[in-house]
Amino acid sequence: MTGFGHNSEDEAEGRIEALAEMMARLPGLGPRSARRAVLHMLQRRDLLMTPLADAMHDVAAAARECVQCGNLSTAETCAICREERRANGEICVVEDVASLWAMERAGAFRGRYHVLGGLLSALDNVGPDDLRIPRLRGRIADEGVREVILALPATVDGQTTAHYVADAVEGSATVSTLAQGVPVGGELDYLDDGTIGAALRARRSL
Amino acid sequence: MTGFGHNSEDEAEGRIEALAEMMARLPGLGPRSARRAVLHMLQRRDLLMTPLADAMHDVAAAARECVQCGNLSTAETCAICREERRANGEICVVEDVASLWAMERAGAFRGRYHVLGGLLSALDNVGPDDLRIPRLRGRIADEGVREVILALPATVDGQTTAHYVADAVEGSATVSTLAQGVPVGGELDYLDDGTIGAALRARRSL
Repeated sequence: MTGFGHNSEDEAEGRIEALAEMMARLPGLGPRSARRAVLHMLQRRDLLMTPLADAMHDVAAAARECVQCGNLSTAETCAICREERRANGEICVVEDVASLWAMERAGAFRGRYHVLGGLLSALDNVGPDDLRIPRLRGRIADEGVREVILALPATVDGQTTAHYVADAVEGSATVSTLAQGVPVGGELDYLDDGTIGAALRARRSL
Repeated sequence: MTGFGHNSEDEAEGRIEALAEMMARLPGLGPRSARRAVLHMLQRRDLLMTPLADAMHDVAAAARECVQCGNLSTAETCAICREERRANGEICVVEDVASLWAMERAGAFRGRYHVLGGLLSALDNVGPDDLRIPRLRGRIADEGVREVILALPATVDGQTTAHYVADAVEGSATVSTLAQGVPVGGELDYLDDGTIGAALRARRSL
């Protein structure tokens, strides 16, 4: 406590409060959990708070889109596009980087990705030129892609975009899409009617 | 994308992943929501990510304990201790700064606080000398405190601490504690038996 002059400005606490308000703008944190996070960090200043602030500055300055696929990277091309083994003739088209990370977590896909950067949306005025669709056609030729796998959300905009992408690459590669059905561990009683209907229509023989 | 040299280090993405792992150490964020928070910040670098990192550096350097009450402050004494109107002869004893903030949110207490900095705990080897109890006795004399209000958790350690503090200040001020009972909006069916019993014993005539 020594070494600090007496400071009587009334808004001194405002800086802690302002930090909590900024934290509360992160998804998953509300005002209360943001305050708890600030207290948690203040109890771990050297081990967490300062390194976290440094990492945020670092990543904010370094992160950019992979010029090939649109994935987040700190290099010009991302690690997936740099890995030769992943040039297996398959490209998985996803809406955003969050979807790419979800696919990677599942660990089931061994090819490369193409991040559209959004979905077609008449309501939000997002057209084909706002998405990374022309670049996809170039990659199919350049990288010898045989199959384009659409991993887009099962929403109206997602399915509109899927049809548009399928039309755009028609003739240059085969197009497939993720199966719809009962999630692993899903109980029928808790599933919506649309999913049950789709799972029934796509039933397979055992 | 121009102006960056080609960078082929394989751990380039590691910095984004490392940031997500640090974020996941905050309470209220898991690995998945931490990744979502990183993506959210990267889409708002100048408006959120950089200001947030700056605010964290700022608060990490400036925040300290109020020399009077133990509240978090960026000044030597906190805003509550500096406000003359709050020297109303009442001191509310709380476990930590989170409890102090919860009391302030409720807006029902107009006096000053005393943050113990923890609870007595035989299991965790926390004794009276580890808490801010001696300082409380000094404040009762210095600030003309008439009533000490204990706002400590209704746990074994909380109640042990409450009894210890009550004994320590006996004779110099009256001691009271928060009422126990049915929470506002609480339904009896969802309440534990202990709370119902306490509410029944503390019943009051209408």
